[in-house]
Amino acid sequence: MKAEKFTLVRHFDGFPKSTDFKLESEELPGLKPNELLCQAEFLSVDPYMRPYTRRMNPPITMIGSQVAKVVDSKNAKFPTGSYVVGSFGWRTLTVTKIGDVATPGDAELLPDLGGLAPSYALGACGMPGITAYFGFLELCQPKPKETVVVTGAAGAVGSLVGQIAKIKGCRVIGFAGTDAKCSWLKTLGFDVAINYKTCADIDAALKAAAPDGVDCYFDNVGGMLSHRVRQQMNLFGRISACGAISSYNDKTGQESQVPVPEGPIVFKQLKIEGFIVSRWWNRRAEAVQQMAAWIRDGKIKVQETVTDGFQKMPQAFMGMLKGQNTGKAIIKV
Amino acid sequence: MKAEKFTLVRHFDGFPKSTDFKLESEELPGLKPNELLCQAEFLSVDPYMRPYTRRMNPPITMIGSQVAKVVDSKNAKFPTGSYVVGSFGWRTLTVTKIGDVATPGDAELLPDLGGLAPSYALGACGMPGITAYFGFLELCQPKPKETVVVTGAAGAVGSLVGQIAKIKGCRVIGFAGTDAKCSWLKTLGFDVAINYKTCADIDAALKAAAPDGVDCYFDNVGGMLSHRVRQQMNLFGRISACGAISSYNDKTGQESQVPVPEGPIVFKQLKIEGFIVSRWWNRRAEAVQQMAAWIRDGKIKVQETVTDGFQKMPQAFMGMLKGQNTGKAIIKV
Repeated sequence: MKAEKFTLVRHFDGFPKSTDFKLESEELPGLKPNELLCQAEFLSVDPYMRPYTRRMNPPITMIGSQVAKVVDSKNAKFPTGSYVVGSFGWRTLTVTKIGDVATPGDAELLPDLGGLAPSYALGACGMPGITAYFGFLELCQPKPKETVVVTGAAGAVGSLVGQIAKIKGCRVIGFAGTDAKCSWLKTLGFDVAINYKTCADIDAALKAAAPDGVDCYFDNVGGMLSHRVRQQMNLFGRISACGAISSYNDKTGQESQVPVPEGPIVFKQLKIEGFIVSRWWNRRAEAVQQMAAWIRDGKIKVQETVTDGFQKMPQAFMGMLKGQNTGKAIIKV
Repeated sequence: MKAEKFTLVRHFDGFPKSTDFKLESEELPGLKPNELLCQAEFLSVDPYMRPYTRRMNPPITMIGSQVAKVVDSKNAKFPTGSYVVGSFGWRTLTVTKIGDVATPGDAELLPDLGGLAPSYALGACGMPGITAYFGFLELCQPKPKETVVVTGAAGAVGSLVGQIAKIKGCRVIGFAGTDAKCSWLKTLGFDVAINYKTCADIDAALKAAAPDGVDCYFDNVGGMLSHRVRQQMNLFGRISACGAISSYNDKTGQESQVPVPEGPIVFKQLKIEGFIVSRWWNRRAEAVQQMAAWIRDGKIKVQETVTDGFQKMPQAFMGMLKGQNTGKAIIKV
């Protein structure tokens, strides 16, 4: 039994290249007691993969999670035919042993999503959904009628944050990188969507979109756009710092620069809190079930950008980093 | 009866200049019911004066607080001979009416400091002390044995923060701009003091001083030094953003730049909170009495850099912005 897998052969330097990855074949061992053989059906590419690999030591199997079918099992809790969500990396077949305590890195049974597509367990009802739910609600503490800005708004997390903010009664402004994405955001209920790549005057556009200033900012991008949003935050504004995709692909020694950030932080008494979703992992069921319910009720709309074929994972990953996806980027095996 | 006062005649542009100020004489009216005539004995120059005047419309009497003696009174609560702390601006004599509700801008009776010098009401037992006490304890939430970094450590606020951190059982590292200041910080109990102006490798010096990383950072300066400290923060580190003096004197359109700040904020899950001391003004007595008690008990040492003569206020202010003061900068009339 052979698995295909992508090995990251070197650290990314600047924007990832196809040659940073190598498609390899791996002979799998037979199952020992408690082990499962899992066959990937859907795999995920996410922005975090770019910065997280910095602290690893290539060559490594490229990191990531997947929805997989258990095709052989010596573990009664995970019978053959059941589905799991596992952080197995970019591989088609995986032999794994499920730990007793679930952490974000462990595999677990696919949650009951009440009939929603299993791939949602990688998106709105999985890590990105848990990220949006807790990262926004816990750190921004939005109040009805407050103004919320979301950057990376058409991405897997941002598109959910904006819709959660609408459910909570907020005015929502999204920044995205194409007119098509901005049109889509409007169909999701965003009050205003701004194409940050073509907007001639972002300060003026934001001022027009947020005449009463910005109370909450869910930041997926960092860098200059975040600098500009900070200038229009209100007193005691809250910033949930989820990601910094605008600088993930900076070459070493050529990091992007921004004007010093402390002015508005001090004088507007802003609170900026960075987070990794693992801090709420013990509460993930709350987020997953609420997201699934909102989706089933039609209150949250989900879009996936699906790439067919395991061998296209590097292209899907690089495309996602370029913003080619709308909503969640998924690879279907 | 004539008062002397300094008028700020134009907005500062870049570093303040003597010609930004004009010494003027003002004829005072007689007292109406409830009014007092207050004669300045000690005046304060503080970093906030530089950025706060940006939003005002010169010509204005330059802003600031003072300890003054009531030399005439038509208000029974403030009899002749009593002392007040008031935000009267840079003036020798002031006619004022005390409001019913005290805000940071109002005058109030000098608090009972148990025999400490009245000028302390402008420093360790006044606004800077309240700033240090709440800004550090409330926002950094220091735990015993944690590592605390303070920038602007030899200033009015920073020198108090470091000593409070020692009282709370922390390891304390201070950054200051002269070797003399660093030596003084050591006499206050700072574990390590680093001269950021002459240190050849701040990253290495901080790493040596904080081998277990930095848990709390009380930031008075912002800019590149804060960027460097953020790189060595621990997971869930807390940053209290009190000031950004390193960029206060930037010329318009020539703002200092730093590498994008979001990387460590996200991945170390840092919490950065800016503040203005007024948010705790209703609790100020707690801070003032605790600071006074610590000073009387010898647990906190206070130093003032005193300039003699009202007419030297601009020089004292500019000197403070250049870091010529150690501890609190005070002007004695």
